[in-house]
Amino acid sequence: MQKVVVLGVGMTRFGKYPDRSLKELAREALHGALTEARISLSKIEAAYVGNAVAGIITGQECIRGQVMLSGTGLEGIPIFNVENACASGSSAFHMAWMSVASGMYDVVLALGAEKMIHPDRTRAFQALKGAADVEELDKFPGGGKDRNNQSLFMDYYAMEARKHMELYGTSMETFAKIAVKNSRNGSLNPNAQYQKQQTLEDVLGSRIISDPLRLLMCSPLSDGAAAAILCSEKISRQLTNDPVFVASSVVYSSNSSGDMGPSNTERAAAKAYALAGIQPSDVQVAEVHDAAAPGELWAYEHLGFCAPGDGARLVESGATEIGGRIPVNPSGGLIAKGHPVGATGIAQIAEIVWQLRGHAGKRQIPGRVKIGLTHNAGGFLNGGSAAVAIHILTR
Amino acid sequence: MQKVVVLGVGMTRFGKYPDRSLKELAREALHGALTEARISLSKIEAAYVGNAVAGIITGQECIRGQVMLSGTGLEGIPIFNVENACASGSSAFHMAWMSVASGMYDVVLALGAEKMIHPDRTRAFQALKGAADVEELDKFPGGGKDRNNQSLFMDYYAMEARKHMELYGTSMETFAKIAVKNSRNGSLNPNAQYQKQQTLEDVLGSRIISDPLRLLMCSPLSDGAAAAILCSEKISRQLTNDPVFVASSVVYSSNSSGDMGPSNTERAAAKAYALAGIQPSDVQVAEVHDAAAPGELWAYEHLGFCAPGDGARLVESGATEIGGRIPVNPSGGLIAKGHPVGATGIAQIAEIVWQLRGHAGKRQIPGRVKIGLTHNAGGFLNGGSAAVAIHILTR
Repeated sequence: MQKVVVLGVGMTRFGKYPDRSLKELAREALHGALTEARISLSKIEAAYVGNAVAGIITGQECIRGQVMLSGTGLEGIPIFNVENACASGSSAFHMAWMSVASGMYDVVLALGAEKMIHPDRTRAFQALKGAADVEELDKFPGGGKDRNNQSLFMDYYAMEARKHMELYGTSMETFAKIAVKNSRNGSLNPNAQYQKQQTLEDVLGSRIISDPLRLLMCSPLSDGAAAAILCSEKISRQLTNDPVFVASSVVYSSNSSGDMGPSNTERAAAKAYALAGIQPSDVQVAEVHDAAAPGELWAYEHLGFCAPGDGARLVESGATEIGGRIPVNPSGGLIAKGHPVGATGIAQIAEIVWQLRGHAGKRQIPGRVKIGLTHNAGGFLNGGSAAVAIHILTR
Repeated sequence: MQKVVVLGVGMTRFGKYPDRSLKELAREALHGALTEARISLSKIEAAYVGNAVAGIITGQECIRGQVMLSGTGLEGIPIFNVENACASGSSAFHMAWMSVASGMYDVVLALGAEKMIHPDRTRAFQALKGAADVEELDKFPGGGKDRNNQSLFMDYYAMEARKHMELYGTSMETFAKIAVKNSRNGSLNPNAQYQKQQTLEDVLGSRIISDPLRLLMCSPLSDGAAAAILCSEKISRQLTNDPVFVASSVVYSSNSSGDMGPSNTERAAAKAYALAGIQPSDVQVAEVHDAAAPGELWAYEHLGFCAPGDGARLVESGATEIGGRIPVNPSGGLIAKGHPVGATGIAQIAEIVWQLRGHAGKRQIPGRVKIGLTHNAGGFLNGGSAAVAIHILTR
């Protein structure tokens, strides 16, 4: 398989856009990526489009990518709609990567776009129920069936957070500190949905979503899109002297009963590190799936940034701040940047590309950044994540 | 890229299964394919799952493949959900093919499954609206917005049928003869939803759906699943001395305004023939997308089985009957076999594999069949199909 380069990335600011369609959001992200890639639309040979919930939110149950890209001038290419719940974007990116790595195409598009904001607010939560087994919702922690006023996934995060607190003595303040860090990073990111620096008091004083989770520890409902143009190394030589390589692209799903989400992350990460030929300690920057703050803490442990149970100490040490040993979620993460679910995975990749290229503005990691990682998780099945995607990008 | 072999295929009988879940249907197809492939489940390294409308029909908007495969013992592999409306199954097959052709995996699963039968019959038609641009439904032929009692796509087929009648003098009887042929083929296929041989009078006397289309010229609502196990040529040598090769796998989407569906088929077919190194006249058996009878007639012309406008003469000559020069839809096609949309593309491939291997029972094409083709179309956008997939299989 041949080496694959991320030539350019783009995204909309994540936010609440009741008056903008999926088409408009997708186009803005596409044009951002094309501009950065300095390549014309006509060079794109195939498109892989991630979206999770448009069927429920907008009624666009099928051909979502074709509709989003309709009128852009992208004609007569294969378009594939790829879904893996909150990991839809990174799954689409993985497919795009494979199509170039295989030698089948030279230049392809990975696009992720989502609208979750709807006048009927319960619709988004209804849609997110479909990211668990709908026949088994009564087995969901907290009982998912009647959760029409918020994401049932917060019950899962809360349950796992309580376990971590019991096992390792992790405190609610530690989770809050992750949210504080991500809000600070978001305040430096013009693409973030929330750009207000929150204090520890703000986070701890916000309303309870599912104990111990407070509102400001949770990712919001968001609209938004992100895009990446991928190409073969050969083509990249004609177009850039600053290539960012996909060193590994790994997607893991689990169906085994009783298998916990974090172990999917561990397994996917082990494979990704092996494929890239690196150790966890080589990672210089990471974007991880902080759908709620405890998710970021588990990611530290399961990605090997610290030992199991040492996540709280890593937070307290400041190592995951911009300027720390291993900055995590410099973009603001899902909590501050926002979480339009199908777009999230590609937005994570966009952030790492910008960090590697030194284009991350006020939130730029200092020093020469050569290795970055993204961790995107989606859905819930049999006690764990239904899909985990890990990408390692290098310069 | 390396050669890819279809090692085994399986499917449920298509039909109305109000009491069977997507899981049950998917499992039956999976086990059929595994049995035919003579391979254990543990060898499968990745799964590509096609489904179009579960979000609307069952509420399972996300992680459809993970849920379908839950409890089968398929653990810790990547599972990707692939959607392209009625071409979802063949798009998933294409992804599966690419993952083996690339050298990434040795053995993978392509699965397509759909439930369309629901106590609320309008739900399926609501879901199918999502296979067109929902923001533009008022531009749909016949005005799609209010079509809650039948598929809005039949208006498109009817409109195109009327054009063909005006242009070439094609008669309603010719469309009816295609339906008669497919019902006869279906009567020979134990997997067909409808196994009753219909007469010309039956077809012409059935109720009008959208003039000139009669009920028995249209594919029904169906539940069902189909599966295929694909592997590298190298692995196939250890497992079979009767390999069926994927000679070409082409998916084409269109966004160009005013671009007609048939021309997508022409362009996809031209590419598929070139990749396989064959001419249309080399094809010995084909399964084509007869969502309504006129669709089969256009497929004859656009796949090059006859000249443009000669479709009616081809029907009248009997060439597309089992035993004719170019048998089309020996399975009974979508009209008689049924059309659980996400499963259809893989069921077409299953039929061609069985025909090539001489395992098609009473509907077996006589003689040594070495080259077969499938044609699967999905969705409607800007005056044409949103996705067309062509596969050429050879022995």
